[in-house]
Amino acid sequence: MQNSFKVGLFSVNVTNLPGLNGLGISAARIDIGFNGSVPMHTHPGASEILIVFQGQITAGFITPTKLIVKTLNPGDVFVFPKGLLHFQLNTGVGTAIAYAAFTSTNPGIHLIDFLLFGNNLPTPTVSKTTLLDPEQIMKLKPVFGGSG
Amino acid sequence: MQNSFKVGLFSVNVTNLPGLNGLGISAARIDIGFNGSVPMHTHPGASEILIVFQGQITAGFITPTKLIVKTLNPGDVFVFPKGLLHFQLNTGVGTAIAYAAFTSTNPGIHLIDFLLFGNNLPTPTVSKTTLLDPEQIMKLKPVFGGSG
Amino acid sequence: MQNSFKVGLFSVNVTNLPGLNGLGISAARIDIGFNGSVPMHTHPGASEILIVFQGQITAGFITPTKLIVKTLNPGDVFVFPKGLLHFQLNTGVGTAIAYAAFTSTNPGIHLIDFLLFGNNLPTPTVSKTTLLDPEQIMKLKPVFGGSG
Amino acid sequence: MQNSFKVGLFSVNVTNLPGLNGLGISAARIDIGFNGSVPMHTHPGASEILIVFQGQITAGFITPTKLIVKTLNPGDVFVFPKGLLHFQLNTGVGTAIAYAAFTSTNPGIHLIDFLLFGNNLPTPTVSKTTLLDPEQIMKLKPVFGGSG
Amino acid sequence: MQNSFKVGLFSVNVTNLPGLNGLGISAARIDIGFNGSVPMHTHPGASEILIVFQGQITAGFITPTKLIVKTLNPGDVFVFPKGLLHFQLNTGVGTAIAYAAFTSTNPGIHLIDFLLFGNNLPTPTVSKTTLLDPEQIMKLKPVFGGSG
Amino acid sequence: MQNSFKVGLFSVNVTNLPGLNGLGISAARIDIGFNGSVPMHTHPGASEILIVFQGQITAGFITPTKLIVKTLNPGDVFVFPKGLLHFQLNTGVGTAIAYAAFTSTNPGIHLIDFLLFGNNLPTPTVSKTTLLDPEQIMKLKPVFGGSG
Repeated sequence: MQNSFKVGLFSVNVTNLPGLNGLGISAARIDIGFNGSVPMHTHPGASEILIVFQGQITAGFITPTKLIVKTLNPGDVFVFPKGLLHFQLNTGVGTAIAYAAFTSTNPGIHLIDFLLFGNNLPTPTVSKTTLLDPEQIMKLKPVFGGSG
Repeated sequence: MQNSFKVGLFSVNVTNLPGLNGLGISAARIDIGFNGSVPMHTHPGASEILIVFQGQITAGFITPTKLIVKTLNPGDVFVFPKGLLHFQLNTGVGTAIAYAAFTSTNPGIHLIDFLLFGNNLPTPTVSKTTLLDPEQIMKLKPVFGGSG
Repeated sequence: MQNSFKVGLFSVNVTNLPGLNGLGISAARIDIGFNGSVPMHTHPGASEILIVFQGQITAGFITPTKLIVKTLNPGDVFVFPKGLLHFQLNTGVGTAIAYAAFTSTNPGIHLIDFLLFGNNLPTPTVSKTTLLDPEQIMKLKPVFGGSG
Repeated sequence: MQNSFKVGLFSVNVTNLPGLNGLGISAARIDIGFNGSVPMHTHPGASEILIVFQGQITAGFITPTKLIVKTLNPGDVFVFPKGLLHFQLNTGVGTAIAYAAFTSTNPGIHLIDFLLFGNNLPTPTVSKTTLLDPEQIMKLKPVFGGSG
Repeated sequence: MQNSFKVGLFSVNVTNLPGLNGLGISAARIDIGFNGSVPMHTHPGASEILIVFQGQITAGFITPTKLIVKTLNPGDVFVFPKGLLHFQLNTGVGTAIAYAAFTSTNPGIHLIDFLLFGNNLPTPTVSKTTLLDPEQIMKLKPVFGGSG
Repeated sequence: MQNSFKVGLFSVNVTNLPGLNGLGISAARIDIGFNGSVPMHTHPGASEILIVFQGQITAGFITPTKLIVKTLNPGDVFVFPKGLLHFQLNTGVGTAIAYAAFTSTNPGIHLIDFLLFGNNLPTPTVSKTTLLDPEQIMKLKPVFGGSG
């Protein structure tokens, strides 16, 4: 993922642990640097449970009618329902570490930034379907590897 | 939805057709004004099939590794896989009309703009988790009813 | 299907739109000529939602304890629960047109007539398991391509 | 069921064995008199496995492209896939007895005859959607308790 | 299975009746000799319905909070919920016979004895994770084909 | 759980985190004292993924045809397929700590010892269905709270 976010994801899924095949579960370790974040994303086919191990993480998910945000300390557990937009912020001092598990052997991560700015979808199309300013889009496209 | 997008959605789901209860399907009619769009959104729990009836619609969905975009004319059919970010643009002359069906009795619509800008999630949090400029965020929050 | 019923089905399913694979949805356009019908049938693995676009259609489904019949005009929506016996009649003037979507990528259509009269199941067997008169069965077998 | 078919069904389902609730299985004993049958029917939401215990049963199911019929003797096992039209005939001497199990706690039995002739669906509607002669329909309606 | 238990299982599953493939059901005939039993076991992925045909069977299943045991005579029906530990005892005179059906095309049988004593898991490991005496374990390992 | 096993389970499931409702996931922290174990058990409706955090754990699961045992160190991940008998042993020095997640909001824990010895199932019944010696059974019944 983007260094800009100061985050490291170490994922154990069916591609590196084939024994997970057919079992509907996988896991990850998440390290978020000071002031860093796991940026806005969805897992289209998986719910996620988060166990904070070190530091402080502010986690949240967003639905059309509700915003759920919570500050988590070591030992705290949080859940992100399947398919919902969510994020995690390191709001403590030092690196934050958490473990996550997912109801899928290969949940993937759909980062809004990569979906919007990491491909060659024309800037006017992105702008018309998000109302983001073309300047904003053109500023972020190179950050996430997109063009056009 | 936002007039800015010039779109009308007429949805038949389990809240206005209770007979759908338990049957796993619903439908909608979509009218997109000239130059309008159904903006970037997901249906977290439903695939969608789209049948274009009038005008021209450019539809697309986005995964971390692929961008699928297609121009559709009357009679054309397109599908948006469950949970993926997608959009529809009126790229013809005059109003475009399409019918959609969903693999859920109540698919909902998670518009990225409303999720990011339609609530009181603080601008610094949105900025840190999207890399959008605070100015851009503060410009769109009032458009989508958000604050903070 | 049999011209006798004056019906045309234009189906978009996984065999002609492979992108539907795994998504659990498909669609069809149904044109019913004046006085025609979509005869009694089931989709063993799919619910169906029907959107009437032109003309008037009388649609119904039948359970052991209930008969549900409704007259539908353009814009009306109806649903046939998974696996139930159902039919559609053109009860208007001129051709009726409707769109249907199904909770399956390939719902199939199990027409009672073809199942009973379109194969070589012996007439006495059909008669004993339906109480239809042998004369009736022998009259319909050639209509639906059956023998014996 | 109709005495005309000389069949007795003794069903153990969630209505008389509440412990089945949530377990997705039920069972039945089927006694078919000499020359009798379990007439043409479907179970819209359940596959069925049949174990013949006494006598001889000729069982079959029908799809749009295939007819599967088999003669079964004591100890033989047969399966009817979910939602397909099927029947059982006593083709032996004396009463035939079989046990059946279903992948549903309450599979129901949708007998074609009761669906077509056991309600007040008008004879012209039945005729137009089946091509059965009105005389045939009017002859069977009283047998299965229907009118109109 | 072990002659010690005086039981014969005649299973009809997807390996010897391929037509069961995808249908989610299978069946078995169970013959239990005088004083014999179907020993403690689970079917990890299937519920089971039992129909007693001859003799008397005492059947039971066990959860962490409940023990359900019932004496069954010919015609009686019992159900074992998916994944629970259960057993059947011949508590009558003469051989007992029953039919069973399962919500899986290949339920398997996980006999506790074979799992604990039928492999080369070291005796100290078995003892530490069950509190069974090492002598007991070493006595049963040869009975079930295990070593170590 | 039994102090005899020197294990502590701290479970986060739908009973103490209601937000998990409908999401199909839960988690637990497992502390195993020196020389202790999580004894032989199943989760009838859930697969489990295990992440070792401190110490050394030897984990295994058992099927009728295979025994899978692995020694795990901090950072190692292991998976127990749904419904299979499994165990964890502290084979290191000092306390071992691990996190687990489950594909169920409330997986439960079916400990073989509690199922066999923690109720009033008569000793002869346990003996006949396990071939355990009556003396062994009577020795363990008081340990796990059973009688008879």
